[in-house]
Amino acid sequence: MSDHVYKKIELVGSSKESIEAAAQNAVSKASETVRNMRWMEVGEIRGHIVDGSIDHWQVGVKIGFTLEAEESPETLEEKKN
Amino acid sequence: MSDHVYKKIELVGSSKESIEAAAQNAVSKASETVRNMRWMEVGEIRGHIVDGSIDHWQVGVKIGFTLEAEESPETLEEKKN
Amino acid sequence: MSDHVYKKIELVGSSKESIEAAAQNAVSKASETVRNMRWMEVGEIRGHIVDGSIDHWQVGVKIGFTLEAEESPETLEEKKN
Amino acid sequence: MSDHVYKKIELVGSSKESIEAAAQNAVSKASETVRNMRWMEVGEIRGHIVDGSIDHWQVGVKIGFTLEAEESPETLEEKKN
Amino acid sequence: MSDHVYKKIELVGSSKESIEAAAQNAVSKASETVRNMRWMEVGEIRGHIVDGSIDHWQVGVKIGFTLEAEESPETLEEKKN
Amino acid sequence: MSDHVYKKIELVGSSKESIEAAAQNAVSKASETVRNMRWMEVGEIRGHIVDGSIDHWQVGVKIGFTLEAEESPETLEEKKN
Amino acid sequence: MSDHVYKKIELVGSSKESIEAAAQNAVSKASETVRNMRWMEVGEIRGHIVDGSIDHWQVGVKIGFTLEAEESPETLEEKKN
Amino acid sequence: MSDHVYKKIELVGSSKESIEAAAQNAVSKASETVRNMRWMEVGEIRGHIVDGSIDHWQVGVKIGFTLEAEESPETLEEKKN
Amino acid sequence: MSDHVYKKIELVGSSKESIEAAAQNAVSKASETVRNMRWMEVGEIRGHIVDGSIDHWQVGVKIGFTLEAEESPETLEEKKN
Amino acid sequence: MSDHVYKKIELVGSSKESIEAAAQNAVSKASETVRNMRWMEVGEIRGHIVDGSIDHWQVGVKIGFTLEAEESPETLEEKKN
Amino acid sequence: MSDHVYKKIELVGSSKESIEAAAQNAVSKASETVRNMRWMEVGEIRGHIVDGSIDHWQVGVKIGFTLEAEESPETLEEKKN
Amino acid sequence: MSDHVYKKIELVGSSKESIEAAAQNAVSKASETVRNMRWMEVGEIRGHIVDGSIDHWQVGVKIGFTLEAEESPETLEEKKN
Repeated sequence: MSDHVYKKIELVGSSKESIEAAAQNAVSKASETVRNMRWMEVGEIRGHIVDGSIDHWQVGVKIGFTLEAEESPETLEEKKN
Repeated sequence: MSDHVYKKIELVGSSKESIEAAAQNAVSKASETVRNMRWMEVGEIRGHIVDGSIDHWQVGVKIGFTLEAEESPETLEEKKN
Repeated sequence: MSDHVYKKIELVGSSKESIEAAAQNAVSKASETVRNMRWMEVGEIRGHIVDGSIDHWQVGVKIGFTLEAEESPETLEEKKN
Repeated sequence: MSDHVYKKIELVGSSKESIEAAAQNAVSKASETVRNMRWMEVGEIRGHIVDGSIDHWQVGVKIGFTLEAEESPETLEEKKN
Repeated sequence: MSDHVYKKIELVGSSKESIEAAAQNAVSKASETVRNMRWMEVGEIRGHIVDGSIDHWQVGVKIGFTLEAEESPETLEEKKN
Repeated sequence: MSDHVYKKIELVGSSKESIEAAAQNAVSKASETVRNMRWMEVGEIRGHIVDGSIDHWQVGVKIGFTLEAEESPETLEEKKN
Repeated sequence: MSDHVYKKIELVGSSKESIEAAAQNAVSKASETVRNMRWMEVGEIRGHIVDGSIDHWQVGVKIGFTLEAEESPETLEEKKN
Repeated sequence: MSDHVYKKIELVGSSKESIEAAAQNAVSKASETVRNMRWMEVGEIRGHIVDGSIDHWQVGVKIGFTLEAEESPETLEEKKN
Repeated sequence: MSDHVYKKIELVGSSKESIEAAAQNAVSKASETVRNMRWMEVGEIRGHIVDGSIDHWQVGVKIGFTLEAEESPETLEEKKN
Repeated sequence: MSDHVYKKIELVGSSKESIEAAAQNAVSKASETVRNMRWMEVGEIRGHIVDGSIDHWQVGVKIGFTLEAEESPETLEEKKN
Repeated sequence: MSDHVYKKIELVGSSKESIEAAAQNAVSKASETVRNMRWMEVGEIRGHIVDGSIDHWQVGVKIGFTLEAEESPETLEEKKN
Repeated sequence: MSDHVYKKIELVGSSKESIEAAAQNAVSKASETVRNMRWMEVGEIRGHIVDGSIDHWQVGVKIGFTLEAEESPETLEEKKN
């Protein structure tokens, strides 16, 4: 564990349901091509308003994932495509 | 879109249910007199504690709304009363 | 208490006496037209210097007040004029 | 000067030209109904992108204006409509 | 009310369900030994990711509680054990 | 001095008189059970408003105190009860 | 709109002309390989000084772009090369 | 893991050697009475200057530790004395 | 007014009396050699604790002063000695 | 130099040795696939605690690298794989 | 390069023209007595409003300059007068 | 101690060795002309990268020093040249 290097990427997820769902949507999208995601941090929380109600939530997240020893940072992402 | 001016107001909404509902309550209250609300940003999130449980959530929000070209900022709000 | 909505406004008060008096002056001014003020938060504290002394204090405050259930935010303020 | 109370309002101005013009547009809009504006502070600076170029700037500003001794804060704005 | 002293402690609560539940879990844990809790403030919001999904939420909270006049801060907590 | 370890605790003090008195009240309360306090740092400054005036000040403080070499952090506080 | 996921990347653009041009240069560079850019946010603004004058501006920007439903985040960028 | 509650305490450690040693000294002191420490976060880094040199480092740290299910927060610390 | 250049210096003033007096002491000290001071901004507020009471206040201030057109920044200060 | 565009990426490096080594490990990992790195900025500094000691350091870094005129941002990284 | 020491000073420049010109004016003023300026960082951006328009911009800048090996920090500035 | 006034200056020190050495280099440089330095605070930590390694550290520091009662702030520095 002590020699891991992590990369963090920043996404914004959306959801009509909840703040949690908006964050999960960002994580789900990232999971299509990024392996070894470990944690996420919630940043800015915004809501888009339509007709006087919050129509959907927009949640900024930073996602951290492990770069394995045998992989280079960019190779990791390459493999997923 | 490029010549819009927006005004932002700051409210605190409350709800026993959830953070989302507290924010929505603030937006709903504002919608009684403010037109053309476009987005909101969540600020401080607090909870009032009663008997060792979070009794209700208090969520600070900033709400942005469009000032239309033919309206002055204060006139806009006037009309709603 | 759990369904209150509060509005926050931002003022800057001045006083030759003290930081507290500058903040109180802002609250007093607001009390002329705003009902149901509940709390204030001190922001930026500045001093205007004349002849090598702080001539008067300028204190930024945010004031929170309750929007009652039967009132719309702007109606509330209307009534006071 | 030492007994003035100022109010600050928060606007977002837009312009295709420049950051300065976007801020000025917000000030101009406010000047339609707010008297005695003294200063503004630039906050968030954003740009809307269309076809790979910044189409227009969106600049958040806080505008400070004097509440005169003989006026109540809300009366001031009332008069302007 | 005007002579109360409050203490604030910082916890991190976890939950698979929601941000609110994670915060409530921290408050519940604190309630086992801390009396007179009044409010909490949400700080950092993080999520632990397992297999491309947010497995559980980790929510930092600061909890404020009243130190009663007849109690010393540490005595208060002593009594609870 | 170079091998000291300090602990910081966070309190909120109140006073009808002044910001300074509110901070001192927090320090006084802490002094009932904490030895070797060295410094405090003022954080959030708020005021509770009643009838259009600041009724009492609420001042957040962090207090730093020395943990002596022969004491463990928690033992220190124990002894005071 | 409510199910979009956006990615944000961080660049620093330079220009001898203006802050706006420096930001635009970063956006232009990104547009060579990134599709669907929607907005940018200005961060740090610095200037490189040569012979007592600001020789060129360096402006940090975060650029947000849409990840389309049918694309994975990294695939998107792949396609552009 | 998903139902853990953590407590965070704030210490300042000192060392003539290095920033790392100052932080470790704070952790070591805490370890005398706190079990289950998991992580620490470095905050403010300061140095005490004597005769034009940094004589010792003072490093603010927040230390997070697990509150086990069968323990109450304060009981945990009690046991250690 | 539109072509003034101001310099800001950072001091910490102390006082047994009050936060205001500590700030004023810093301004008074600066006034011995700096002309044309215009404003100050309060930063960090700390207190030194002796025997369980705040013995004196330490207040960080930034002081802004005008550099006159006919003076170079450093010449200004030179003249005062 | 005045027309360079830089990209910044965010990594977290680990090391049992020191803060510097943790940051260097992140830079070394990035150097496997990123050319033209120019500078890094240290963000969050954390330590993982095992048995009452800091077992390894985790240091967040932002790394800035030049995007050469003839390269597109993503092409640059592509080439390295 | 690796053994340079830089000093940073803080100025506020003004201009009726633009944010860039206000910053340049501060740098120009500093260049009258400070050698070896390398970079500047923009801080607070404010505008003075007259008759509903931004009359001039006030831009806070920090300017960094090299202290050469053979010079002491204060000597450097001395020489320029 | 209660009537001291301190001045703070901001430097950036460099070192190939460590963060501590970079900070010490800034303090050493300042010690050539500044007396009575008491403490320093670490700000921004950056590294210059050459060939994929951190070539030298650049550490921003604020240094606080006492202005003695019999000295004016600028006189103090004068004497040292």
